[in-house]
Amino acid sequence: MTSDPPDPGEPGGEAVARVRAMLEQDAATAALGIEVVALAPGRATMRMTVRPDMVQGHGTCHGGIVFSLADSAFAAACNGRSRGPVFAASAEITWVAPAFLGDTLVADAVEHTRYGRNGVTDVAVSRQGDGALLALFRGRSVQVSRTPAPRLMKGGPR
Amino acid sequence: MTSDPPDPGEPGGEAVARVRAMLEQDAATAALGIEVVALAPGRATMRMTVRPDMVQGHGTCHGGIVFSLADSAFAAACNGRSRGPVFAASAEITWVAPAFLGDTLVADAVEHTRYGRNGVTDVAVSRQGDGALLALFRGRSVQVSRTPAPRLMKGGPR
Amino acid sequence: MTSDPPDPGEPGGEAVARVRAMLEQDAATAALGIEVVALAPGRATMRMTVRPDMVQGHGTCHGGIVFSLADSAFAAACNGRSRGPVFAASAEITWVAPAFLGDTLVADAVEHTRYGRNGVTDVAVSRQGDGALLALFRGRSVQVSRTPAPRLMKGGPR
Amino acid sequence: MTSDPPDPGEPGGEAVARVRAMLEQDAATAALGIEVVALAPGRATMRMTVRPDMVQGHGTCHGGIVFSLADSAFAAACNGRSRGPVFAASAEITWVAPAFLGDTLVADAVEHTRYGRNGVTDVAVSRQGDGALLALFRGRSVQVSRTPAPRLMKGGPR
Repeated sequence: MTSDPPDPGEPGGEAVARVRAMLEQDAATAALGIEVVALAPGRATMRMTVRPDMVQGHGTCHGGIVFSLADSAFAAACNGRSRGPVFAASAEITWVAPAFLGDTLVADAVEHTRYGRNGVTDVAVSRQGDGALLALFRGRSVQVSRTPAPRLMKGGPR
Repeated sequence: MTSDPPDPGEPGGEAVARVRAMLEQDAATAALGIEVVALAPGRATMRMTVRPDMVQGHGTCHGGIVFSLADSAFAAACNGRSRGPVFAASAEITWVAPAFLGDTLVADAVEHTRYGRNGVTDVAVSRQGDGALLALFRGRSVQVSRTPAPRLMKGGPR
Repeated sequence: MTSDPPDPGEPGGEAVARVRAMLEQDAATAALGIEVVALAPGRATMRMTVRPDMVQGHGTCHGGIVFSLADSAFAAACNGRSRGPVFAASAEITWVAPAFLGDTLVADAVEHTRYGRNGVTDVAVSRQGDGALLALFRGRSVQVSRTPAPRLMKGGPR
Repeated sequence: MTSDPPDPGEPGGEAVARVRAMLEQDAATAALGIEVVALAPGRATMRMTVRPDMVQGHGTCHGGIVFSLADSAFAAACNGRSRGPVFAASAEITWVAPAFLGDTLVADAVEHTRYGRNGVTDVAVSRQGDGALLALFRGRSVQVSRTPAPRLMKGGPR
């Protein structure tokens, strides 16, 4: 399965620049120690090392933390091929194998298709070194207009 | 839709006690500031307040952190109705509304059904106070035998 | 988990009447032998008996046919609480137990939440008689404006 | 993202032969007019033309019928790389664009990964001719032992 060709009127470097600016404000991604390895329109690769504060009761990385890495890569990939902000609508993850303390995880995200304001992005999370696949993630995104919708604003009437 | 009746031979308090012990070793859940509100066989309620280090580029709580709260509640619910350790196989989340800095999120997890070694658990994440629904999560779990399978063990000391 | 309260300005009987009219034109649902048991705003119950032409290689009902029953109930439930046509955006199914030739399956659909133009509907498929749960389905819907978007129209007469 | 390399001890032609035998007994797939285009270990391509009895209320192919095509290809792909019968555990579909009466749909299934008795298979459904992507499907499978488990057999005590 191949990705769709980019739209003729698709943004190029300016969307990726917007993603970089967005990531500079992203305290959550920074707090998880997530590093950007590569960014391109519709693509993102990110990396995170499993710290002691990411390990859960079964002795392995918390599944939500693995998801968070994939989710950050998903957001960067789909925002990097869009003229306006893109939000995550839903996502699913299949955990293939556990990640352990000290493992460095690599998330590769590719926007598989875009239609109307919607998109589907696939992310594979693997372990750096042996390349073992750890998780498969699929996210669905929706582009919103530049003016935030009322339900996305805090403090006003809902 | 109602939950299935518990199996006649289903564990009671000892499974919930095992969940409590598991949570005491769960550094990731603790690091996220997740508190247990209530635990029962097949049910768990947990709470987390959105901190500055959980906010992302769009000015709202990172979607993976919302997922992590739901995932912790999922794990507690399904392990609390099982004789042996239960692992998450896959999960999906639909983000209904954004969570903001300072919001306290409440995750209510209910194991909807169990069949063979498999289970499906639904989690609703809402905002404390106005009760607004923020996300719907569905997780699929598999009970493993008490002896870890080789693929779950990592070579070398950790 | 309870359903959201209906919107104050929510449609009542006219939306359900629109669903009934829609179903009268739904050749696919009719060809599958799907019967409407009950319709209400945000809710639908449908029934289908597994015929010889619905059984697959493993000797059980084709998983896609079970999905189709759930999908028809999903469409009726969410259209019955909407002012305009609602389309399915994505859905997921977990098969809990097989259905066999001659079994009558009952799908109960409840629109769990609606936000903006989006909705999430849960469907449980069970076997009539013993009430055994056979599948859990979750669908995500989007309301479109009454005027079909260009991407939904196909060039040329049909 | 590439597929995993086949296991060293993986079955070859005999698994594909088993899939062909399975499909000969699959009345549901035949009744939907689904044709096999190509089969290989971990891969399957199938084709179906949208008939008048597959069209629903919105004037397009019933979403469950599109799902059924993808599901048949999923089953053939994952059974074609397995020593024993493989069952579908769960699946999700994103509908990208509608299919219309007379369209011929092509489903391309690739087993993305296999781990333990589990597997993940991705299916893309496109329209023959213009190749437009119509749906993305992801299925999770579990291999069962050759002896059916009691809960999978009909007629005995439940």
